[in-house]
Amino acid sequence: MSVSIQRLQNRLFDLHSNKLFETAVIFIIIFSALVTGVKTYEINTSLDQTVQWLDALITLFFLFEVTIRLIAEPRTLDFFKKGWNVFDFVIVVASLMPVDGNDTVLLARLLRIFRVLRLISVIPELRVLINSLLKALPRMGYIALLMFIIFYIYAAIGSSLFNAINPDLWGNISVALLTLFRISTFEDWTDVMYETMTVYPLSWIFYLTFIFLTAFVFLNMMIGVVLDVMQQEQKQYDRERDDSEADEVHYIKAEMDQLSAKLDTIETLLRQSKRHD
Amino acid sequence: MSVSIQRLQNRLFDLHSNKLFETAVIFIIIFSALVTGVKTYEINTSLDQTVQWLDALITLFFLFEVTIRLIAEPRTLDFFKKGWNVFDFVIVVASLMPVDGNDTVLLARLLRIFRVLRLISVIPELRVLINSLLKALPRMGYIALLMFIIFYIYAAIGSSLFNAINPDLWGNISVALLTLFRISTFEDWTDVMYETMTVYPLSWIFYLTFIFLTAFVFLNMMIGVVLDVMQQEQKQYDRERDDSEADEVHYIKAEMDQLSAKLDTIETLLRQSKRHD
Amino acid sequence: MSVSIQRLQNRLFDLHSNKLFETAVIFIIIFSALVTGVKTYEINTSLDQTVQWLDALITLFFLFEVTIRLIAEPRTLDFFKKGWNVFDFVIVVASLMPVDGNDTVLLARLLRIFRVLRLISVIPELRVLINSLLKALPRMGYIALLMFIIFYIYAAIGSSLFNAINPDLWGNISVALLTLFRISTFEDWTDVMYETMTVYPLSWIFYLTFIFLTAFVFLNMMIGVVLDVMQQEQKQYDRERDDSEADEVHYIKAEMDQLSAKLDTIETLLRQSKRHD
Amino acid sequence: MSVSIQRLQNRLFDLHSNKLFETAVIFIIIFSALVTGVKTYEINTSLDQTVQWLDALITLFFLFEVTIRLIAEPRTLDFFKKGWNVFDFVIVVASLMPVDGNDTVLLARLLRIFRVLRLISVIPELRVLINSLLKALPRMGYIALLMFIIFYIYAAIGSSLFNAINPDLWGNISVALLTLFRISTFEDWTDVMYETMTVYPLSWIFYLTFIFLTAFVFLNMMIGVVLDVMQQEQKQYDRERDDSEADEVHYIKAEMDQLSAKLDTIETLLRQSKRHD
Repeated sequence: MSVSIQRLQNRLFDLHSNKLFETAVIFIIIFSALVTGVKTYEINTSLDQTVQWLDALITLFFLFEVTIRLIAEPRTLDFFKKGWNVFDFVIVVASLMPVDGNDTVLLARLLRIFRVLRLISVIPELRVLINSLLKALPRMGYIALLMFIIFYIYAAIGSSLFNAINPDLWGNISVALLTLFRISTFEDWTDVMYETMTVYPLSWIFYLTFIFLTAFVFLNMMIGVVLDVMQQEQKQYDRERDDSEADEVHYIKAEMDQLSAKLDTIETLLRQSKRHD
Repeated sequence: MSVSIQRLQNRLFDLHSNKLFETAVIFIIIFSALVTGVKTYEINTSLDQTVQWLDALITLFFLFEVTIRLIAEPRTLDFFKKGWNVFDFVIVVASLMPVDGNDTVLLARLLRIFRVLRLISVIPELRVLINSLLKALPRMGYIALLMFIIFYIYAAIGSSLFNAINPDLWGNISVALLTLFRISTFEDWTDVMYETMTVYPLSWIFYLTFIFLTAFVFLNMMIGVVLDVMQQEQKQYDRERDDSEADEVHYIKAEMDQLSAKLDTIETLLRQSKRHD
Repeated sequence: MSVSIQRLQNRLFDLHSNKLFETAVIFIIIFSALVTGVKTYEINTSLDQTVQWLDALITLFFLFEVTIRLIAEPRTLDFFKKGWNVFDFVIVVASLMPVDGNDTVLLARLLRIFRVLRLISVIPELRVLINSLLKALPRMGYIALLMFIIFYIYAAIGSSLFNAINPDLWGNISVALLTLFRISTFEDWTDVMYETMTVYPLSWIFYLTFIFLTAFVFLNMMIGVVLDVMQQEQKQYDRERDDSEADEVHYIKAEMDQLSAKLDTIETLLRQSKRHD
Repeated sequence: MSVSIQRLQNRLFDLHSNKLFETAVIFIIIFSALVTGVKTYEINTSLDQTVQWLDALITLFFLFEVTIRLIAEPRTLDFFKKGWNVFDFVIVVASLMPVDGNDTVLLARLLRIFRVLRLISVIPELRVLINSLLKALPRMGYIALLMFIIFYIYAAIGSSLFNAINPDLWGNISVALLTLFRISTFEDWTDVMYETMTVYPLSWIFYLTFIFLTAFVFLNMMIGVVLDVMQQEQKQYDRERDDSEADEVHYIKAEMDQLSAKLDTIETLLRQSKRHD
């Protein structure tokens, strides 16, 4: 029994490590994305039927593929130790939700869209890319916090001062935060400013200081992250180089010690020959 | 007496160095920010009453905390030698202004908003961030001055030429400066340009040279600051490495001098033995 | 016969290597660009006639120049081994299409516009620039794919949710992709957002997460490419330096071996002299 | 006579090297800028009179200052060998144009605005900044040319295809170039696109490829310039370091040669003593 399971596992492992199978998975993910895309067009009933059949087939295939990988794993629970496996598993399980129920039809459709994300876990280069993006996240966290503090203070000031002028933009702190985000993208920010300048002629100070502050912090954030990453790379690189340099210096020192030892021998010999005299 | 003060100081110092107390301070600052945010919503009278009570409590807590830190300092005046302490002190004292007086109610509310800034002085990572931002300030000063000269000249030209076309945008040099800042953010700049082009068909030269100049200077500013910071880091790093390299070369030289000395001894011995012959 | 062909080839090679001829080619390309430009103005019939004559002359000259370079090549087929030659040849041949046919008149005119591109193949500095741009292409490929996955998912969600609100912007996945590209350039993105927020008040989450994701990925893309290029340059540079350092260390080691050999000789001599004693 | 001129020169040189005089010049330039600014406001006649008097005084002062520096120069013509002197001289002479003549009143006023630029030649830090910006100019030249070729081709295509749709935007190649520049700043570019998409539904390809091309080239331009500058700095820095390293290696080699010579002496001595035996 156990042997036949072992054999099945090996076979399944061979299957999902197969280059052809991997390519098939990539193509079915892309095909699934296209089917998702087609569903957004207004299509006639017969095509709609086909699309739903295809969708069901894709769902089954993904379930099949994840099950294979789950079984092929020597110890089943080790499967969940890799982040990308959990990522795949959650996406596939979430897309199993039936689209028939009236209330959840939209949610089920949305969940199936996320199957496109499996492209990231399948293509190694994208996986590397995402991993390197995740590494930059904590470094950006504190800068995002600093940015949020600036936004919060300006939103509180803005909603206190300009509330009466335009409640749609400055009605409360949440709306004001959205308005400030809009201003930070320069999207029609002068319209917002000219409106408040009719009541508070000096309110351009509010907008200009906000733009300068966010731009300045953002610029320094970019520079900071670049420098941070560069320094790390540089240090690692130099460490490797230093090792090889250290080897060479070691070699020279070792040779010198040998020379020194030889000279000691010669000196001893000479002193002996002298004593003989 | 002096001993009991000493004991009180130590106790207070223990308290404000306490990890739990620090966390409490952070939470109360965040809570204070939320209370500030709630006040921007239209709320019923009973909640408003609660918020005012909370606000008073927060104010008292901050006063209490700063007083503790002030007393805990062995020499009271040393407290004001640290920039961040002064920063905290000014924010807390400013927020003590009563909100009751009719004229100053808005000012008092605005001053309390700045209590959110205390998050920066409490979280060490943010303090480091701000310190590094401040370091970049002087380097950006002269570039800002250069930028302002460009803006000023274009504003003077613009308000001389386009004054009659649209006084709202080009009426005088201050208004023209604001219009130029708007153009530098690309906000509806073509509307401004098309308007003046009806009178001066060649005025696109004015706008395009302005955009190129500011973009070019800004781009070089960014590059310059990046390079400046990088060079400093590199130099400091290399200085450290050079020290360790210098050590190794020193070692090799020292060994060589020893070898040389040994050879001299051998030569002397040989010459002596020869003379003996 | 073969000798006279050889002589012709040499003469043609001399001609097209001639500095004056090269300058003439550059000027005729610029002149051709100007003629293309003039044709976009509404001009009277007599000038139009002149322009058409000039156009025909330019076409003939380019044909003549490419033919010369083709013949001047010792082996004719080697001409097509250089990418820039193929680039020139395709542009010249494509511009030979007659402008008389009614249906293809627009296509023929468009094809002649691309003759301006020959400026790139003629000026060496631009050729270097293009080559370095092409080197960055593959590195940007996977990031573009990642970006497209983000766009595709948001477009699928957007066209599912907001389809009924504004079919012009969210009607199907292609239209939604275009709308999202517009949002990523911040072009009137708040108008799009405010429209959907009337139905889904929380849809600002959709827009803000999209902007943050694309900005974050784009920012890291820039940083990544910069670092990638820099590391390559640095490695190549260090490799060269290491070579020269390795030479020096080699020299020191070789000298040490000589010293060691000499000491061995001395020791042998001493031992011999001792045995003699 | 010649001696008294010499003495006058020395005195004038002392004057314009005087720290106080330099500060005075800076203040008068700033004051001149403010007067220029005041003139853009609508002011009553009496103030206007004052401003004109001030303007005349400033003009005289600048003339006086340049004359001093011209005379103070030991050889008068050497004054024009420094770029910044010529810069100052041209600005001062140009501002001498009388404002009275009716036709040239605007030109004369504009020329006086450029006196603000003298701030650059007076403050050394700004002079350094401008010099470093000028260094980056040639590197950006070829990229600007490449950019212009892309713009020109798209403008020619655009004015051929979209001419009939909106002559204001695509009427001829110059207008099309301006429209494309507007698109490259993302200023209401979707309005332009949606208009042409009503006739050519596929014209979004035109806009998207244009945006990608210009963004891609611009991005690489930035990166290229940064890398270029960095490499230069790095090379210069490494050259200095290599020199000091080379010195050390030289020292080690020299020591080794001495050791080798000593060993040779010892060997000779030994061989001699052996022969004696």
